Amino acid sequence: MAIAFQPPSSDKAELESGAAFTPRFDEHGLVTAVVTDARDGELLMVAHMNAEALALTIETGIAHYWSRSRKALWKKGETSGNLQTVVELRTDCDQDAVWLKVSVAGHDATCHTGRRSCFYRSVARDGDAARLTTEDDNVRFDPAAVYS
Amino acid sequence: MAIAFQPPSSDKAELESGAAFTPRFDEHGLVTAVVTDARDGELLMVAHMNAEALALTIETGIAHYWSRSRKALWKKGETSGNLQTVVELRTDCDQDAVWLKVSVAGHDATCHTGRRSCFYRSVARDGDAARLTTEDDNVRFDPAAVYS
Repeated sequence: MAIAFQPPSSDKAELESGAAFTPRFDEHGLVTAVVTDARDGELLMVAHMNAEALALTIETGIAHYWSRSRKALWKKGETSGNLQTVVELRTDCDQDAVWLKVSVAGHDATCHTGRRSCFYRSVARDGDAARLTTEDDNVRFDPAAVYS
Repeated sequence: MAIAFQPPSSDKAELESGAAFTPRFDEHGLVTAVVTDARDGELLMVAHMNAEALALTIETGIAHYWSRSRKALWKKGETSGNLQTVVELRTDCDQDAVWLKVSVAGHDATCHTGRRSCFYRSVARDGDAARLTTEDDNVRFDPAAVYS
């Protein structure tokens, strides 16, 4: 039996303190998904889910997303082997975002560049611009080989 | 002198490995901002920034967002006192999201409900629906008094 999400309440108090999970999908039918490593809390990636991806994630315990670039359901790690098992799923006060604490299989890498996290660069001011510094350059798999 | 962001490169390799911070604002002029506590990595909130909010954040070291509900620049904590000082700012591989590691002033609370984090509820399957369980009900300030 598949999960169906009921439409969100227009009552703010119900959204914030009720027991029903009624995700507030945006005009593209998406919620934001923040993904951290259940092991140490490191932020791994930010992605989006439509209702199908969110239901599949809850039903299977494996993270599914909606790829905005490919306009397709995306079972994360299906190609690379870096599947994400969901240890805990949370939602926020107004139910338009979810937080997945995951355990990453395979190379223990989430970014398509081969790094552990997509957030491998810091931002700092440089006069009237901002510059990036690479904080993690440990590439854990060869993207050219994995995605060929 | 204010910070100005250059338009993003159409070259994927430049976006992923170049030294220029060229945020990829969406059709609403926004990037996603993930906010964690610099102290222990706890996910506090997810919000959005337009170019002005992002520039002000970098220039002042205090987190600014764009409120989609109020359609206005939002200096987080201006009313509640729970200002966020940015300890580190990062961006992701394709530069459409930023990660702020912050130190929270005031009540050490980020959610407008008074809780430390907006993600105070977990989601679990319940037959063909999904239900919420409150994981943190420690309300650190009285929203009715603070936002009156």
